[in-house]
Amino acid sequence: MSTTLPITDRTRVRRRAERAGYERAEVHEILDAGLVCHLGFLGGHGPVVLPTAYVRVGDAVIVHGSSRSGMLGALADGCELCCTVTLLDGLVLARSAFHHSVNYRSVVIFGRAEVVQAPHDKHEALRAFFTRLYPGRWEVVRPPTDAELKATLIVRIPIEEAVAKRRLGAPVDDEDDYALPVWAGVFPLTITRGDAVADERLHPDVAAGEHPPAWCPGTIPAAR
Amino acid sequence: MSTTLPITDRTRVRRRAERAGYERAEVHEILDAGLVCHLGFLGGHGPVVLPTAYVRVGDAVIVHGSSRSGMLGALADGCELCCTVTLLDGLVLARSAFHHSVNYRSVVIFGRAEVVQAPHDKHEALRAFFTRLYPGRWEVVRPPTDAELKATLIVRIPIEEAVAKRRLGAPVDDEDDYALPVWAGVFPLTITRGDAVADERLHPDVAAGEHPPAWCPGTIPAAR
Repeated sequence: MSTTLPITDRTRVRRRAERAGYERAEVHEILDAGLVCHLGFLGGHGPVVLPTAYVRVGDAVIVHGSSRSGMLGALADGCELCCTVTLLDGLVLARSAFHHSVNYRSVVIFGRAEVVQAPHDKHEALRAFFTRLYPGRWEVVRPPTDAELKATLIVRIPIEEAVAKRRLGAPVDDEDDYALPVWAGVFPLTITRGDAVADERLHPDVAAGEHPPAWCPGTIPAAR
Repeated sequence: MSTTLPITDRTRVRRRAERAGYERAEVHEILDAGLVCHLGFLGGHGPVVLPTAYVRVGDAVIVHGSSRSGMLGALADGCELCCTVTLLDGLVLARSAFHHSVNYRSVVIFGRAEVVQAPHDKHEALRAFFTRLYPGRWEVVRPPTDAELKATLIVRIPIEEAVAKRRLGAPVDDEDDYALPVWAGVFPLTITRGDAVADERLHPDVAAGEHPPAWCPGTIPAAR
């Protein structure tokens, strides 16, 4: 498999083309740093965009939810979709209003989803999701029952037609504006985790502070 | 104007209806806590979802960008759109795999955009955007020139058909599972701002630490 994604009509970035990337490694790196994607599909009355958590496994993004979910039903039916992940990395303050910007990394995937059908495959998909979002939990929680697995619809979105885009670093001002005595720079933004809030009904044998090592920025599992 | 949004075919939440909200105040509160929306529209080859920064002003979301932007061009042409804002508030760890979840707040807006045409209105829209994302900057930076204003396409998305959805608080486990000696609770997530990174070409009269009070979580401008 090529390490570079093909450039198609849909993935060709026309403006700011220098910010686009088609390397699978770059696409995977961004996907592995995010938690929530926005899924777009055509509903009965026009486009619909809904958020959902995801995990990347190999060359696919996997999302899941209730088998009664309208969105997952549409995806399972094989509708055209767009799956977008955005990481907001900073606010960019320039010397002119015009050149203010934001630093970000994003991935946009086009295609159709495939239903993950076999119970073993569903199990493995959920395990991968847990390893990403809730590391250390899969091994200690009550595993899914057959009924729960049946009530869960899992779809796989192949990363075949996709593009990464990013803006990094300092503001870029018009040359004349560098003479202005106006502060300029970047305010970095990150997602951080606050202190764990233990459930009020913890089992008496479990200490409130005994929570697992949880997801937090920078502790991204190695790319699979 | 009613304080409650009408429930339409598109905004009626069928599953987990208890998480939905149609109060304008709730929709505005969530929009005012976010920085980036995901805009969905139908491109030439299917649905497209792209991120962009926004500001809410009154009963509308305003986005802007280059007048050569393909997405803004489609929106300016009056295509059906979906504008979604998602705030990821926490990871929810239950005693069973099945009941793991995420805490979030989201707003989904359906409709069509209107172009902000008059130079005065464009100016005011950009000022509102700055007040939200870059407080204190509009007053000190070089203002937009006529040419820059002309190169900026601004659209207004009316908040007429919209719904808020949220999950809050502790995990909800099956009653039997509360007997399991498994830690359960919530890991709160927030966006935080790191130390400002001053541009390398700051004017000699400007100190690197002399940056403005910047956007950070909790310093949300009062609802307009």
